[in-house]
Amino acid sequence: MSTRVGVLGATGAVGQRLIQLLAPHPEFEIATLTASPTSAGRSYRDAAKWRVDTPIPEEVADTTVAETDPDEVPNDIDLLFSSLPSSVGADVEPEFVEAGYVVSSNSSNSRMDEDVPLTIPEVNPDHLDLIEVQRDERGWDGALVKNPNCSTITMVPTLAALEGFGINRINVSTLQAVSGAGYSGVTSMEILDNVLPNIGGEAQKMETESRKLLGAFDGAEVTHHSADISASCNRVPTLDGHLENVWVDLEDDPSPEAVAGIMREYPSADLYSSPDPLIEVFEDPERPQPRMDRMLGGGMAVAAGGIEKTTDGVQYNCLAHNTIRGAAGASVLNGELLLEEGYI
Amino acid sequence: MSTRVGVLGATGAVGQRLIQLLAPHPEFEIATLTASPTSAGRSYRDAAKWRVDTPIPEEVADTTVAETDPDEVPNDIDLLFSSLPSSVGADVEPEFVEAGYVVSSNSSNSRMDEDVPLTIPEVNPDHLDLIEVQRDERGWDGALVKNPNCSTITMVPTLAALEGFGINRINVSTLQAVSGAGYSGVTSMEILDNVLPNIGGEAQKMETESRKLLGAFDGAEVTHHSADISASCNRVPTLDGHLENVWVDLEDDPSPEAVAGIMREYPSADLYSSPDPLIEVFEDPERPQPRMDRMLGGGMAVAAGGIEKTTDGVQYNCLAHNTIRGAAGASVLNGELLLEEGYI
Amino acid sequence: MSTRVGVLGATGAVGQRLIQLLAPHPEFEIATLTASPTSAGRSYRDAAKWRVDTPIPEEVADTTVAETDPDEVPNDIDLLFSSLPSSVGADVEPEFVEAGYVVSSNSSNSRMDEDVPLTIPEVNPDHLDLIEVQRDERGWDGALVKNPNCSTITMVPTLAALEGFGINRINVSTLQAVSGAGYSGVTSMEILDNVLPNIGGEAQKMETESRKLLGAFDGAEVTHHSADISASCNRVPTLDGHLENVWVDLEDDPSPEAVAGIMREYPSADLYSSPDPLIEVFEDPERPQPRMDRMLGGGMAVAAGGIEKTTDGVQYNCLAHNTIRGAAGASVLNGELLLEEGYI
Amino acid sequence: MSTRVGVLGATGAVGQRLIQLLAPHPEFEIATLTASPTSAGRSYRDAAKWRVDTPIPEEVADTTVAETDPDEVPNDIDLLFSSLPSSVGADVEPEFVEAGYVVSSNSSNSRMDEDVPLTIPEVNPDHLDLIEVQRDERGWDGALVKNPNCSTITMVPTLAALEGFGINRINVSTLQAVSGAGYSGVTSMEILDNVLPNIGGEAQKMETESRKLLGAFDGAEVTHHSADISASCNRVPTLDGHLENVWVDLEDDPSPEAVAGIMREYPSADLYSSPDPLIEVFEDPERPQPRMDRMLGGGMAVAAGGIEKTTDGVQYNCLAHNTIRGAAGASVLNGELLLEEGYI
Repeated sequence: MSTRVGVLGATGAVGQRLIQLLAPHPEFEIATLTASPTSAGRSYRDAAKWRVDTPIPEEVADTTVAETDPDEVPNDIDLLFSSLPSSVGADVEPEFVEAGYVVSSNSSNSRMDEDVPLTIPEVNPDHLDLIEVQRDERGWDGALVKNPNCSTITMVPTLAALEGFGINRINVSTLQAVSGAGYSGVTSMEILDNVLPNIGGEAQKMETESRKLLGAFDGAEVTHHSADISASCNRVPTLDGHLENVWVDLEDDPSPEAVAGIMREYPSADLYSSPDPLIEVFEDPERPQPRMDRMLGGGMAVAAGGIEKTTDGVQYNCLAHNTIRGAAGASVLNGELLLEEGYI
Repeated sequence: MSTRVGVLGATGAVGQRLIQLLAPHPEFEIATLTASPTSAGRSYRDAAKWRVDTPIPEEVADTTVAETDPDEVPNDIDLLFSSLPSSVGADVEPEFVEAGYVVSSNSSNSRMDEDVPLTIPEVNPDHLDLIEVQRDERGWDGALVKNPNCSTITMVPTLAALEGFGINRINVSTLQAVSGAGYSGVTSMEILDNVLPNIGGEAQKMETESRKLLGAFDGAEVTHHSADISASCNRVPTLDGHLENVWVDLEDDPSPEAVAGIMREYPSADLYSSPDPLIEVFEDPERPQPRMDRMLGGGMAVAAGGIEKTTDGVQYNCLAHNTIRGAAGASVLNGELLLEEGYI
Repeated sequence: MSTRVGVLGATGAVGQRLIQLLAPHPEFEIATLTASPTSAGRSYRDAAKWRVDTPIPEEVADTTVAETDPDEVPNDIDLLFSSLPSSVGADVEPEFVEAGYVVSSNSSNSRMDEDVPLTIPEVNPDHLDLIEVQRDERGWDGALVKNPNCSTITMVPTLAALEGFGINRINVSTLQAVSGAGYSGVTSMEILDNVLPNIGGEAQKMETESRKLLGAFDGAEVTHHSADISASCNRVPTLDGHLENVWVDLEDDPSPEAVAGIMREYPSADLYSSPDPLIEVFEDPERPQPRMDRMLGGGMAVAAGGIEKTTDGVQYNCLAHNTIRGAAGASVLNGELLLEEGYI
Repeated sequence: MSTRVGVLGATGAVGQRLIQLLAPHPEFEIATLTASPTSAGRSYRDAAKWRVDTPIPEEVADTTVAETDPDEVPNDIDLLFSSLPSSVGADVEPEFVEAGYVVSSNSSNSRMDEDVPLTIPEVNPDHLDLIEVQRDERGWDGALVKNPNCSTITMVPTLAALEGFGINRINVSTLQAVSGAGYSGVTSMEILDNVLPNIGGEAQKMETESRKLLGAFDGAEVTHHSADISASCNRVPTLDGHLENVWVDLEDDPSPEAVAGIMREYPSADLYSSPDPLIEVFEDPERPQPRMDRMLGGGMAVAAGGIEKTTDGVQYNCLAHNTIRGAAGASVLNGELLLEEGYI
């Protein structure tokens, strides 16, 4: 039997991707859609200017959009996916959880809260049990789970694969697609024949979120990883797919072949949306490329390549689809984990 | 009185930039143009499909293009600028120097030869005297001087400014414009909605050339700088202007303000094409951007910004116009230095 | 039982699209691949630098590429698809047909030959019987069938739909994607932040091919349509999908609704690759758009929109995927027609 | 002595271009800048996020921005340039004129009003005397003059040159740059790897404004030109420069050479910003191109090329810089005409 799910913030760019992924999903059934008061009361077809690259799913096109308010959402919804603007999410998500809903959220608010699990199911599924701490501390019936920022997700699975070599330090430079800023986030006048060398708050997210994701959970709290991480984030004129140049200083001294091998063997999760292999490693140093490789594993794989030794470790490139693996797909995958682990 | 100059490889992308810069130059007078046998004998207007963003200079449009051969070039030429393909340059440049010509070359061949000066006039003008060693060893009357690769030039002036703080290690990620590959080097199918994460040989050039440029010359040989340098080079869909994300590990622990100050004060050279300031430092972390800032100082300045402390040093971005400061303008500036230092 | 087919010129951009379409095709089985002598003898994986947006089909990856020569192709091949450069095709295609092969060709040579059928199966399938004339005149056992140029195919189905209103005159302006020029046809320096207002020979192809396609075949010859056609062809910075602004002067005076209706009802062919509907008509005047709509009908549909009355007829926009409907898919569809009509 | 001028709506994209053109202008001195209430009271440097490709003029950087209100503008201003949003302009421009100011406006409101001159100084300078009618009818001391829309201006000078051949009908397809929609008008997600086949209201502006511009003024009213005009307007991924494919049906039957000749000889105006030649005609059919040719005549020339005969007239391409000749420069040129004609 399908799990009845809802989407909070269903009309935005990530909201549309959520619906694209949820409509054909074998475990979930879309039962409610919410948006801002200006969209509430209209059909989804009408409220969302549908811009994803597949047709609007007929089963949701005529759904009436509800306001993003716990009182407007049916009680029999088992799971809510949230792609609200973070300023809205910070206010509204706690209200839904307090009202008993389980929320898998892509919004950036609360990601670094000590009692909120920030999870990538293939990397740190055990952190999900922070929900117990969260319920204890906040007296909530529901649960709030977060996935990390798109640029963080692109890099962290490859780092998790390297953990056994002892990670000391990371420098990472990103070449991020415009879709990461939302549909209207980057104007054409800004980006044609240009590059933007700074993305507000992005470097800090990569630095703090990565340490939490790679941290150890002892049942009570997450001890963040001690690696020294420094990120420099750039916006480039590509539509989808974040490419990242990563330097990792390691305790050990593995060969590029050993690094490639351990990445290729890094296990995927036993969940519907987790691709196998999780990390696709290219021999050709000219790959991965955003347009060629962003749809690997249905947009859920991470691609890596150009692995070379440095004096203190290794340098390589990685890439993931920023609105699938990096946002909507990440939330769906966390939803699958919540179901698997019995939180729904 | 003007110095009579020639351009070897005058029809290519860098050759056209050379002519654009030399035509109005107060110290140089274009006296001969050479190209491959298929262009030789034709008017320059006809042989070069002029593509630079200012009109073809009338004074060279009707010049008959000569073959790139010392026997085809007049004897009274004082200085030759070379933008030959490196495979051609490797064969032909020594013939010109043996025949007594002074050559300022942008071609990548011979840059790392021990007796060939690789110079940026604001950074290591003293290396020019390697010409004496070169003449002794090779028995040449002329001289061969090189400027570094475009991606190297973009970064090295900022590193030279930081030298006093003690440079231990550099990681650098580049976002390079398509013009760096020549007019036909990158197809539109490769780069639209895409990024190419590898540029053949580019990372190695940045690593080796930078160490030579920052090295010490004792009158006999250049001792390369000991810094550990690792580069990752990317091609992005911009026309002109290379942006670079740089991490520098330093002995000292300067504040971002101190780093900005020392970059701003780094002296320009007392030469016609050297801009003042040499390094333009932005406070706004969203700058420099390729399209906005590549023409600073007539395309000869280096722009820097986004300076931040890291655990071991500093992180910042820098940018320069790759076919002006990074290629044609660099050769012209070396020509000015050769004149100033009495080698012509 | 599958028809055994081959691809002449299998490594090029259209050749790769042909293989992408033929590999999963229920009626055809790829049995041989040919290319130039430099590729012959190598595996297809090795000879073709595969650049299409789906993985290289495993069943052809290890096929050894043959030289494009009738003596190198097995006798039991029933049908050859040709995407040879037109200068090569002009020489080699007749040799294959003379040797008894049936060839469905996308190459531009011979399209306007009086005894060569130029067909779009939904528009003028009856022209296929020109094969009888061709065989009579040339003494051939095989047959040579052509599909038109990509920019012609985009427009002609909509014109065919309007035929009943009496077409007097057509002005058409095209906004063509870079893939139409082949993988290396348009450099990034030419097209970034730019438009090229002329595509060599393209306007003439649209004018002459359209009149032949819309002409009447009486069993002996094709009388070209009398419409006055003038095209202006532009290259724009899009990857795939040609958009065209069309003005059609008509005898009758139909409303925009009548024009939309007759386009929507225009029948598809009863062939595997013919989409239903053939022509997708948008109400939203902002559609069709290349990136949003080029994959309609698996890339085989034609999209139309923005229909408005003019003083003398109608103005509208149309769009098709130039390397699927406009090239490889067009050849495959002609192959299906050849099979259906018993020529194979 | 300089004429003291002001700019209404000084912080927008066209406002910035106005200031870029006015700062070095020999006849005008910038004396006041206005903007919306949120910008009023701040320095211009602070209120305008300066994005034009030359540095912000120092003489205006520290000017305090006033509110766009006749009471906030000094009385000794002789001329106001307006680049207000048309909805604001419709309300506010009449207030300024009623208060006695002469306004040269780029805003689209009122362009088709019978007593408002719509002028291109090289094309219909005599229409300026509609000001007398305007003053009579409205009882105004000041004056309101408009320049046409950017896509109209690009085409009309070439049509004016052809007037002697008798213009019956015009079909025109535009390929317009993103800057025409203002800094935030086109998002990167809309336009990368795409074309937008419809620009709201643009086709109608081209059709109606062109007929007024080419119309005859008898001292009392303008009789619009009778030509049948149909436009189809597209947005393409270029930054600046509108390219247009034009078909003109003519009474006469001139050769392409005659058409080129009459365009080349079409006179410029004896005003500071009018370039000579006004129309640059290329022999090379691959020109004009937006990136290569938009800055001809300092961005004030019109380029034409690809001239060919059609059955009923002629087909050609034309191009102009949409924010210089097509907007800010057009207003400045009308200001020069107002000064020359004694209206200031």
